[in-house]
Amino acid sequence: MKLVSLSDYLLLRINRTPSKAASDKSKAAGAGKSNAEKARGKGAEKTAANGSKKPDDKGAAKPAEKMPVNRQIYQLIREAILAHTLPAGMQLPSSRDLAGELGMSRNTVTYAYEQLLAEGYLESRTGAGTFVADTAPDQIPEAAERIEPLTDPSGKSELSARGALLTRMAGVGERQWGAFMPGVPDVTCVPHKVWSRLQNKHWRRSNSDLLTYGPGAGYAPLREAVAEYLRVARSVNCNPSQVLITTGIHQSIDIVVKLLGEHGDSAWVEDPCYWGTRSVLNSLGIQSVPIAVDQEGMRMRLANLRRPPRFICTTPSHQYPLGMVMSLSRRRMLLEYAAAHKVWIIEDDYDSEFRYGGRPLASLQGMDTHDRVLYMGTFSKIMFPGLRIGFLVVPESLAKAFSTGIAELYRNGQVFLQATLADFMAEGHFASHIRKMRVLYAERLQLLMQSIGRHFGEKMAITGGEAGLHLVLGLPQECDDVLICEQALQAGIIVRPLSRYYMHARGARRGLLLGYASVPNEEIARSFDKLAAVIKRHLPG
Amino acid sequence: MKLVSLSDYLLLRINRTPSKAASDKSKAAGAGKSNAEKARGKGAEKTAANGSKKPDDKGAAKPAEKMPVNRQIYQLIREAILAHTLPAGMQLPSSRDLAGELGMSRNTVTYAYEQLLAEGYLESRTGAGTFVADTAPDQIPEAAERIEPLTDPSGKSELSARGALLTRMAGVGERQWGAFMPGVPDVTCVPHKVWSRLQNKHWRRSNSDLLTYGPGAGYAPLREAVAEYLRVARSVNCNPSQVLITTGIHQSIDIVVKLLGEHGDSAWVEDPCYWGTRSVLNSLGIQSVPIAVDQEGMRMRLANLRRPPRFICTTPSHQYPLGMVMSLSRRRMLLEYAAAHKVWIIEDDYDSEFRYGGRPLASLQGMDTHDRVLYMGTFSKIMFPGLRIGFLVVPESLAKAFSTGIAELYRNGQVFLQATLADFMAEGHFASHIRKMRVLYAERLQLLMQSIGRHFGEKMAITGGEAGLHLVLGLPQECDDVLICEQALQAGIIVRPLSRYYMHARGARRGLLLGYASVPNEEIARSFDKLAAVIKRHLPG
Repeated sequence: MKLVSLSDYLLLRINRTPSKAASDKSKAAGAGKSNAEKARGKGAEKTAANGSKKPDDKGAAKPAEKMPVNRQIYQLIREAILAHTLPAGMQLPSSRDLAGELGMSRNTVTYAYEQLLAEGYLESRTGAGTFVADTAPDQIPEAAERIEPLTDPSGKSELSARGALLTRMAGVGERQWGAFMPGVPDVTCVPHKVWSRLQNKHWRRSNSDLLTYGPGAGYAPLREAVAEYLRVARSVNCNPSQVLITTGIHQSIDIVVKLLGEHGDSAWVEDPCYWGTRSVLNSLGIQSVPIAVDQEGMRMRLANLRRPPRFICTTPSHQYPLGMVMSLSRRRMLLEYAAAHKVWIIEDDYDSEFRYGGRPLASLQGMDTHDRVLYMGTFSKIMFPGLRIGFLVVPESLAKAFSTGIAELYRNGQVFLQATLADFMAEGHFASHIRKMRVLYAERLQLLMQSIGRHFGEKMAITGGEAGLHLVLGLPQECDDVLICEQALQAGIIVRPLSRYYMHARGARRGLLLGYASVPNEEIARSFDKLAAVIKRHLPG
Repeated sequence: MKLVSLSDYLLLRINRTPSKAASDKSKAAGAGKSNAEKARGKGAEKTAANGSKKPDDKGAAKPAEKMPVNRQIYQLIREAILAHTLPAGMQLPSSRDLAGELGMSRNTVTYAYEQLLAEGYLESRTGAGTFVADTAPDQIPEAAERIEPLTDPSGKSELSARGALLTRMAGVGERQWGAFMPGVPDVTCVPHKVWSRLQNKHWRRSNSDLLTYGPGAGYAPLREAVAEYLRVARSVNCNPSQVLITTGIHQSIDIVVKLLGEHGDSAWVEDPCYWGTRSVLNSLGIQSVPIAVDQEGMRMRLANLRRPPRFICTTPSHQYPLGMVMSLSRRRMLLEYAAAHKVWIIEDDYDSEFRYGGRPLASLQGMDTHDRVLYMGTFSKIMFPGLRIGFLVVPESLAKAFSTGIAELYRNGQVFLQATLADFMAEGHFASHIRKMRVLYAERLQLLMQSIGRHFGEKMAITGGEAGLHLVLGLPQECDDVLICEQALQAGIIVRPLSRYYMHARGARRGLLLGYASVPNEEIARSFDKLAAVIKRHLPG
């Protein structure tokens, strides 16, 4: 159908339902429409399909319903130009004439024309009127035609190899809260009133430094508080200038690798280990070399030692996820090896504040006399994960480069949150929150152990019950722990399969990671009953 | 000096100042010390230096001052073991005996022993007593000795090549607030009371979903609000499932490259462009190919078109930093080229809410019919940079992979902030804040233009004054804009040199980026007077 005039085209498609009302009832859209309106809608759609050679379907009819009329006119003319229904060079009626034909105010049309002029769809020639601009694409020189497309011709996956690996191997769970989600503290215990009070104090002051981009290294008073805390509680050797505030372990690893590593380097990772470590390394082109762990922690083979990696990623205070502590001899060996071969040790100390049998253990960093350790931790487990504040301690000689790198790559901010946390620490709430949580989590650990004992006696090995927020319940090797987790989820229980934390399925130990910290005391037995029922279906014999 | 007994060693070094008091006056440390204490301190240090073959200096004397005595004993014995002053296999006195010799309570000693046992420095043999453990490093097999260190033998820089490039070329400034910092909105105008009220509402409810790890894609109501806003204000074609919440443009580019690109791919970047784009690409091993811009935006040469990149990074609505709008023909050419060669277009739409001559322009994404555009924006310029919330709109077919990728790589959280922002939008504060700021920034732009005119007449070209938060003041090519910026900073004025935004110094235009949005009206003329004085010293003739 060749259009007779621009006004006909527009009249057929404009939806005159007042925009505000339409928007208000948009959710109940179909239901509220009169038959007449529905018919008009259909007619308009039909016209569009006929009237344009290659209709720009997207965002046409639907959004228009909510739009003011002037916006609709703009959109309809734009579509017609893109579809060549209004060809380049064609003169448009004056805004006054078009407004008359449409029975609308001239402003309505002027608005649309001005917007189209600004965007280059129309051009105005002085004294002559308004014309459809030539919006044909800049010509692509012929030579370009010969070029082959870059991505797979099958069109099957558009992800890069790196992206496909990353999403296929993703370790992150769909749900992040409930019994027995590992690695999550009880966020309902955060002293909300205190936190709000401290937060509001900073908002009232309206301090521009707290709301604009932050310094790369983080808010100075928070860095001081963290340095002090780490010195006393974790025997970390540091002054505040070595402490950098990040958004957590993931970002800490990302910046360490970007500043100290090259694409193609390798990293030793504990096997099993935290999935996040492996994924961040993968995403940066670092090859993970799995190192088995025994009761003393990472156990390198000769073949490993012959090829020093760029990085060694380790959780010496509390192996993740199995829970053992790295022995002193193993620690010293790692440090000597790192010093001799210029390897960087990435020490992830994610939750050792919660050690139920005594004080937290000293860090590996504190024993390092050659500046080879990059020590990192997080406030996610002590405070709440949504806070997204962590820290990274680097050797003094690297502090400046790291501060620049963080500012350059992430433009971290949220100084208002960092300031709130600094006050929270300075006023002593932090230390007392840790103490309270340690008592609470110890109780929950006991309750969970009792439940396990009631169902399984001594039959199943429990590891990692000395510290942290979760334990590992060992399963017979013939059990499919992944399947158990799926079935448990159907029963409303979140558990994670130990085998998935290994790099290769072959040789992976079977078991379940059970987080107890976030589960209210009175729910533990009941939830474990449900889980035990699922497990029992899978036990041999 | 050979030690006579463990108790002598300890007595010489223990600092008996009560820990609490010591901690309180720790800042005024030296001043408050008695001469006797000072002498004792010195003696202890001397002993340590003599008594240990290889003293573990770090964290020794200083932290000890603040520590309770039991902790000091633990630390001193630990150092002695590491230094082999207490050799492996040596039997320690019983805790009762040692306590007696030290004149301390037995608990004090027991504490230290237990901690050392837990950490593996001591071992207890049933019925026989407590012994120094063998903490010699695991033996490193000989073969490992032959290996060459990985990093540069000069020991000059420990950064990787990537890290060195990144920190050397860093574009981020030291200061982030003050006249005429570009790219920063007036954060003091954020409606603080409203924001605090909305924030507190969520804190009072103590909703665990808001405090634990967030869903990869972000908080659903915020995604809906953003989708609605982008459809209406920016002609973006999207539904909420395509909108992903990130921490800003940097993270949006990072995830796009990690999921859709490989190390070694290339990306076209506008020349000049935002430094952050180039740095994030560099950090991921993507080669930036500079594409000059003219009045219509990016202008590809034949040589460029012959080699399709993986990505095209562009700012079509408001070229950064020069400010032009990409012409419609250029837009259509880019889209056709991207579709033909499976190139991804990264559309960075960072501040086009603030267009002073009319409505914001339609996005490139809205014209795309082949799903080749990844559209990104930020709340940093509309709200405040410290909020660290941005968004990324991806084709529907990629939404699931991006949601997984974001959760896996960043574990984003801060749902409580996202919820606050969603409410802020839903209650209409967002739209009215934009309107208010647009009026305010237009005023400031006028004031700055007047100041420029007063000092320089029409002599210097101003570009980019139609939209955004900054303009570019052109300088004669013989001016050193970097030097002018340094001298301006000494005069208390922040400006950024245009030449630095180009990939290569050769051919770079000289000029100054002047941000006006965050400068109070009454300060604009005064601050520009200072800047003009610096500029005039550099003008030729």
